[in-house]
Amino acid sequence: MTVHTEPIFDVAQLAMVALYTPKLAESLAFFSILGMKQVHKDEDGAVYLRAYEDPYKYSLKLIPHHEAGLAKVSWRATSEQALQRRVKELESRVEGEKWVEPSYGRGSAYEFTTPEGHPFEIFFDVEYFEATGDNSSKLNNRPQRRPLHGIPVRRLDHVNLLAKSVDKNVDFMRDALGFKLREYLSKPTGEKGASWLSVSALVHEIAFMEDDLKDHYDDYRFHHVAFWYGDPQDLEYLGDALTELDYKIEAGPLKHGVSQAKCMYVIEPGGNRIELFGDTGYLIFDPTFEPVEWKESDAEKAIIWYGAPLPHSYFRYGTPVVEDLEIKQFYDDIKVIKAKVVEPN
Amino acid sequence: MTVHTEPIFDVAQLAMVALYTPKLAESLAFFSILGMKQVHKDEDGAVYLRAYEDPYKYSLKLIPHHEAGLAKVSWRATSEQALQRRVKELESRVEGEKWVEPSYGRGSAYEFTTPEGHPFEIFFDVEYFEATGDNSSKLNNRPQRRPLHGIPVRRLDHVNLLAKSVDKNVDFMRDALGFKLREYLSKPTGEKGASWLSVSALVHEIAFMEDDLKDHYDDYRFHHVAFWYGDPQDLEYLGDALTELDYKIEAGPLKHGVSQAKCMYVIEPGGNRIELFGDTGYLIFDPTFEPVEWKESDAEKAIIWYGAPLPHSYFRYGTPVVEDLEIKQFYDDIKVIKAKVVEPN
Amino acid sequence: MTVHTEPIFDVAQLAMVALYTPKLAESLAFFSILGMKQVHKDEDGAVYLRAYEDPYKYSLKLIPHHEAGLAKVSWRATSEQALQRRVKELESRVEGEKWVEPSYGRGSAYEFTTPEGHPFEIFFDVEYFEATGDNSSKLNNRPQRRPLHGIPVRRLDHVNLLAKSVDKNVDFMRDALGFKLREYLSKPTGEKGASWLSVSALVHEIAFMEDDLKDHYDDYRFHHVAFWYGDPQDLEYLGDALTELDYKIEAGPLKHGVSQAKCMYVIEPGGNRIELFGDTGYLIFDPTFEPVEWKESDAEKAIIWYGAPLPHSYFRYGTPVVEDLEIKQFYDDIKVIKAKVVEPN
Amino acid sequence: MTVHTEPIFDVAQLAMVALYTPKLAESLAFFSILGMKQVHKDEDGAVYLRAYEDPYKYSLKLIPHHEAGLAKVSWRATSEQALQRRVKELESRVEGEKWVEPSYGRGSAYEFTTPEGHPFEIFFDVEYFEATGDNSSKLNNRPQRRPLHGIPVRRLDHVNLLAKSVDKNVDFMRDALGFKLREYLSKPTGEKGASWLSVSALVHEIAFMEDDLKDHYDDYRFHHVAFWYGDPQDLEYLGDALTELDYKIEAGPLKHGVSQAKCMYVIEPGGNRIELFGDTGYLIFDPTFEPVEWKESDAEKAIIWYGAPLPHSYFRYGTPVVEDLEIKQFYDDIKVIKAKVVEPN
Repeated sequence: MTVHTEPIFDVAQLAMVALYTPKLAESLAFFSILGMKQVHKDEDGAVYLRAYEDPYKYSLKLIPHHEAGLAKVSWRATSEQALQRRVKELESRVEGEKWVEPSYGRGSAYEFTTPEGHPFEIFFDVEYFEATGDNSSKLNNRPQRRPLHGIPVRRLDHVNLLAKSVDKNVDFMRDALGFKLREYLSKPTGEKGASWLSVSALVHEIAFMEDDLKDHYDDYRFHHVAFWYGDPQDLEYLGDALTELDYKIEAGPLKHGVSQAKCMYVIEPGGNRIELFGDTGYLIFDPTFEPVEWKESDAEKAIIWYGAPLPHSYFRYGTPVVEDLEIKQFYDDIKVIKAKVVEPN
Repeated sequence: MTVHTEPIFDVAQLAMVALYTPKLAESLAFFSILGMKQVHKDEDGAVYLRAYEDPYKYSLKLIPHHEAGLAKVSWRATSEQALQRRVKELESRVEGEKWVEPSYGRGSAYEFTTPEGHPFEIFFDVEYFEATGDNSSKLNNRPQRRPLHGIPVRRLDHVNLLAKSVDKNVDFMRDALGFKLREYLSKPTGEKGASWLSVSALVHEIAFMEDDLKDHYDDYRFHHVAFWYGDPQDLEYLGDALTELDYKIEAGPLKHGVSQAKCMYVIEPGGNRIELFGDTGYLIFDPTFEPVEWKESDAEKAIIWYGAPLPHSYFRYGTPVVEDLEIKQFYDDIKVIKAKVVEPN
Repeated sequence: MTVHTEPIFDVAQLAMVALYTPKLAESLAFFSILGMKQVHKDEDGAVYLRAYEDPYKYSLKLIPHHEAGLAKVSWRATSEQALQRRVKELESRVEGEKWVEPSYGRGSAYEFTTPEGHPFEIFFDVEYFEATGDNSSKLNNRPQRRPLHGIPVRRLDHVNLLAKSVDKNVDFMRDALGFKLREYLSKPTGEKGASWLSVSALVHEIAFMEDDLKDHYDDYRFHHVAFWYGDPQDLEYLGDALTELDYKIEAGPLKHGVSQAKCMYVIEPGGNRIELFGDTGYLIFDPTFEPVEWKESDAEKAIIWYGAPLPHSYFRYGTPVVEDLEIKQFYDDIKVIKAKVVEPN
Repeated sequence: MTVHTEPIFDVAQLAMVALYTPKLAESLAFFSILGMKQVHKDEDGAVYLRAYEDPYKYSLKLIPHHEAGLAKVSWRATSEQALQRRVKELESRVEGEKWVEPSYGRGSAYEFTTPEGHPFEIFFDVEYFEATGDNSSKLNNRPQRRPLHGIPVRRLDHVNLLAKSVDKNVDFMRDALGFKLREYLSKPTGEKGASWLSVSALVHEIAFMEDDLKDHYDDYRFHHVAFWYGDPQDLEYLGDALTELDYKIEAGPLKHGVSQAKCMYVIEPGGNRIELFGDTGYLIFDPTFEPVEWKESDAEKAIIWYGAPLPHSYFRYGTPVVEDLEIKQFYDDIKVIKAKVVEPN
C-alpha cells in the first residue's frame, strides 16, 4: 500500500488581480461593459473594480502605467495559520519577498515573485464588500445586486501567465503553494507546453503557457485574466455589444477541450487580454484526480474541442507587448482601440 | 374536389399598441428595465416607446389616464390596396368607424371597434425609425443597436383581449380582417373558451380569452400585451431584476402548451399585464394549417405544458380593473407598486 | 403618391428537399444524430426523413446516386388557385417543365428548373404526418413527439444554392414565384454577390451565392440545406456529439450578420453541406421591408457578426464536387467520413 | 486578534447514493431518460448507475425493496489519513458504526448513522470508471462520452434529508465530518428550520430540512437526491420529455433563492424525489464565508427567488412515505406512475 502525501489546502482562492494600463479611462469604459463597478480610486490614480458576485471589496485593480501588463496576482490563504505555513515555505524558495502593509481591501500581505518573476502576494485578512442602496440585493447570498448595465460578469475566475519554463512554474505552484496540476499539454521532449492548476473545484485558478517569444524579453509576460459568466448566452450578447462598440474580439465564442470552457477572448483598450468564461466547464471534486495529459497529437482538441481554430496572435501576443511581425495585422487592429462612449440610457 | 377559398393577406402585422396608465412615470421606469426607449412625447403627455428590433418609430404608446387599460390596437395593412379592401369589408360590419388624421409615426388610419368594443385601427403608411449616433447599429438589418441597459426585449409580439364571446371575436377577426384561427380551447357547449389567431407565421398576433367577470362590466377589458425576447435565458435575468426592484411577477417563467411559449407575466406599475415571451414557440408556414383544438380535458396541458399552474388572478384580473374579492391578495400586492429608481450605471 | 404593386403570396413555404448521396447508409446514420426519423423507403431505394416539427410526411429525401448534390427543391403553394397562377407564370419562363404524378407525401406537382438549372417543383396537395404510438405527442400542436435520441432538429428551414449569376436567380424567384429579396451582398459592379429571399416571416427560405468555381462546370451546384433548432445551446451539444463521432464540422458555432443566425456547418458523410440553425435570427413582418444591402466594405460583418472567419472551403466547396486544389486539405478531411455506429442506448 | 480554528478538509465529496425502490424496472426506465447508464447488477438484484461526468464506477445504486427511501449516503475522504481522522472522531459520536468490506466500486468503508439514523458511510479507496468502445470520449478530461439518449445529467450533486432537529444534524456534520454551514433558514425560536452544508465550492453536498411530519414516524426520511445539468435549457427538454411520458413533475423549473439554483423536482416511479439542477447557482471560494441566514420573513425569497411557489407536497412528502391526507391528490397522482417504454431510437 502506497502512503499518499496529504494535499495542502493553504491557498483558498484567487482573490484579486492588478493590471497595468496605459489608457486608464478607456480601460474603465471597457470594464463598465462587463458590468464591473468602480469602488475606489487611490491617490496614485489606481482604480479598484468589482464584479457583482465577488465577495471582497474588489477583484480587479487598474494601475496607470506606460505599458500594459500584470502588476500583481493576489491569493487568499485559507487561514492565518495557513498563511504562516506558506510564508515559511516560500522563504526558502523565492527572492525579493517581503511583508507589505495593509492596503485598500486587504490586510498585510506577503509579496514575492515566482521563479520567472511574476509578481504575487498572499494574505489572509480581507475586507468584504458591503452593498448599500441600489447596490443591495434582496438575495441574502449575493454580495451585490446584479447590475442593469452592460452584460455583467459574475466574478473573477483565473489568470493565465506566459512562461519560459512551464515545468518550473508547475513545480513552484505545487511545492510552495499546494496547487494541484489538473491538465497539461506535453511536448515530445517530455516537458510541459502548458498547464492548468487549481486549489479548488475549478480546473484552474492559474495557467501557464510556454511563450513562443520567450527568448525575446528579460522580464515576465501576462497572457490573460478571466471573468466568469456561467451562462454561455451572455457571450453572445457581449460579442454583439463589443462589435457594435469596435472593441477587438480576438477569438470566440469557442469551446476549449482543456477545462471544457465555452469562452471568448477580448483585448481591452489598454492592451491586456481578457477572457470571458461562458459556461461552467467541469468541476473537480475527486481528491485523487489524476492530471489530464494532452499529447502533441491531442493538442488540437485540447485547444479547441469544436469550432474554429485559435488565431496565431493567441500564441504570441502578451503584455508587455513584444514587437512581433508575425502578427502585424493584429497590432494594427488593436492600435485603433479607444474609449467608447456608451449610451447613457 | 373541394375548392378552397383563398386566404386573405391584407393585414400584415400588429404594429403598435396604446395603453392607458394612471402612473406614467412609474410605467416608464418599468419599460426602461425592458430596454425600451422613449422616442417621443406628444403635447397631451402621451409617451412613445420602442424595442430595439421594432422597425417603425414606436410600438408602444403610454397615455396618462385615470385607470389602466387598452387604448388602441394598431394593425398595419399589407398594401394601400389591402387597406382599402379591409375598410370596405369593415364598413358593413362595425360601428363608430372613421378615418383619422396621420399622427406620430403613422399615416392616416381607419379607426373602428370590434363587436365587443375593443378599439382598433388599421393603416398602411408608416414612418420608420432612423437610428442616429449611439443608437445606430453596425448590423445593417437591425433598426437600432441593442441597448446596454436593462434586459432588452426585441419587439412587440401580440395582444390578448378579454372577451364576452370568444366565438364572436374569432368570426370578426377572420371574416373582416382575414385572420386565421391557430389554436382554441373548446368548451363542452361547443363554444370557444379562448382562441389564438394570426396573419403571419406567428401562432398569434391576437388572442381572446373569455372573461370570468364578463357579467360585471359594460365596456371592454384587456388581458395583456407581449414583447418578445427569443432567448429564454433573458426571462431569468428579468425575473431577477424585477424581484430586486419589487415589481409584481404574476406568473412564470413557465411553458404554455398553446403556442409552446416559454414566458412570464408581470403587472406594470400602471396596472396593465405585460407578457415577456422568452423562446420562439413554434412557427406556422403550412398554408392549410388546421386550427388546433384543446378540449376541456386538455385544458391543463394547453395552459401549462410543464411547470406550476397559473394563479387564479390570471383568469380574473384585467384592465380596467373590476373589483373581485376572489383575488384580494393579488390587489393588495399590486397596490404597492411604485416607481423604482434604477441604478444610474 | 406611388401605387405599389401588391405582393404575391402564392408560394407558402419550402416543404421538402431531396438530396443525392453516394453513401446512403452513412448519410442516414448522420441524420439520426439530428433526431430525424426514417418514415418511408421507396422501391428505388430512396429514403424519406422528417424532423419532429415538420408538418408533412417528410421534409428530406435521400436518393442513392454516384455523387452528392441537390435532387429537388419542393415548394408548397398557398392554395390550388395559387398553384395554377404560378404554373401559368412559369410556363412562359422556364424550360423542361412538366406536371408529374403524385408521389409519396405529396399530390401532383409541376416540375421545372431555374434559369441556371436547379431542379424545383411546386405543388399544393400534401399528406400530413400522423404520429402513432410512441411518436404521438400530448401537445396537440406538435406533429410528433420530440425524439429522445440525438440532438433533434425541429424542422426544415432553408436551402442555399450556388449560382453563376445571383441577379438572374433573384429576378426569377421574385418575378416567377413572388419571393421578396430580404438581404444581399453587392459587388462594386452593382451586381449581387449573394442574396437571401423569402415568402414568409423568415429572412430566407432560399439563398443564392455566386460560385467561385462557376467557370469550372456546366451543370448546377448546391451549397447547403438548413435545419432549425431554435435554441443555440443545441449547437453545443451537436458540436460535442459530432466531434466524438468524427464528423466534419466545417464552421461554427458562429453568428452571421446576414439573417443574424447563430449556426454551424457540417459535411454529412455523403458530401452535402448541412447547416444547423441555432437561434431565431430575426423575423420580418413589415410588408414593405426594404432589402438590406451589404456593400463590399460590410461583407466581413455580413458573413460573421462576431467570431472566427469562415474557412476558405465555405466559398468553394459545393456538391457535386469540383476538384479544387485550393481546399485540398478540406477534401482530405472529408474523405475519411464513414458510417458511425452510434450507441444503442 | 481572534485565532480561528482551521477548517477541516477530510471529507472530499459526495461520491455515491443508494436508494430503495419498490419498482426497480420502472425506476431504471426513469433514470435512462436522464441518460444514466447501468454499469453493474449485483447478485441481490441491486443495479448501479452512472452519469457521464461521474468519475467513479457509479454514483447511484438502486436496491429492490418493499418501499422507497434512502439506503446509503457515501462520502469519499480526501486521503487515507483523513479517513482515519474522521473514523476516530466518529467513534466517540455515533452508534452502530462498523468497517465494512470492499464492495462494487469502492474499497472498505466505515459505516455509521447520523444522530437521527440516516445511514452514511465514508471511504477512501475507490474504483474509477474506464470507458470502452462507444462510451469512450475523445475529451481526455471526460470519463465517458456524453450519451446520445435522453437528456443526460452530468453528475451527482447533493442529497437532501428530512430531519427532526436540523440543529442536531448541522452540529454533527460540522463537528464530526468538517462540513461548513453555508445557508440556513432560522425559526423565530432561534432554531434552524433548514440548512445547507458543504465541504467544497458547492453550496451544498447535503441539506437538512425539518420534517412537517416528524412526529409521525420513528425512523428516518429522505427528501431528494440531485443530479446536475449545468445548463438550464436541459430542464426544458426534460420537462417536455417527462410530460410526454407521464412522469410526475412535482415543481419547477424554478429558481431557488437559497443556492441560487434553477431546478426541477420529479418523483421517480419508485416514489423517491429526484432534483435536476439546471444552472450553476453560485460557488463558494471564500474560506471565511459566513453562513447566510434567511429569517422567517425572508423564507419566501429563500425558497423561490422568482416564479411560482412550491406545492404543499414539497414540505410533506418524503420517503419512506407517511400517510398524509393533506396531500392526498399528490398521492393519487404518483400512484399512476408506471414503467414507460421509451422509443427504441
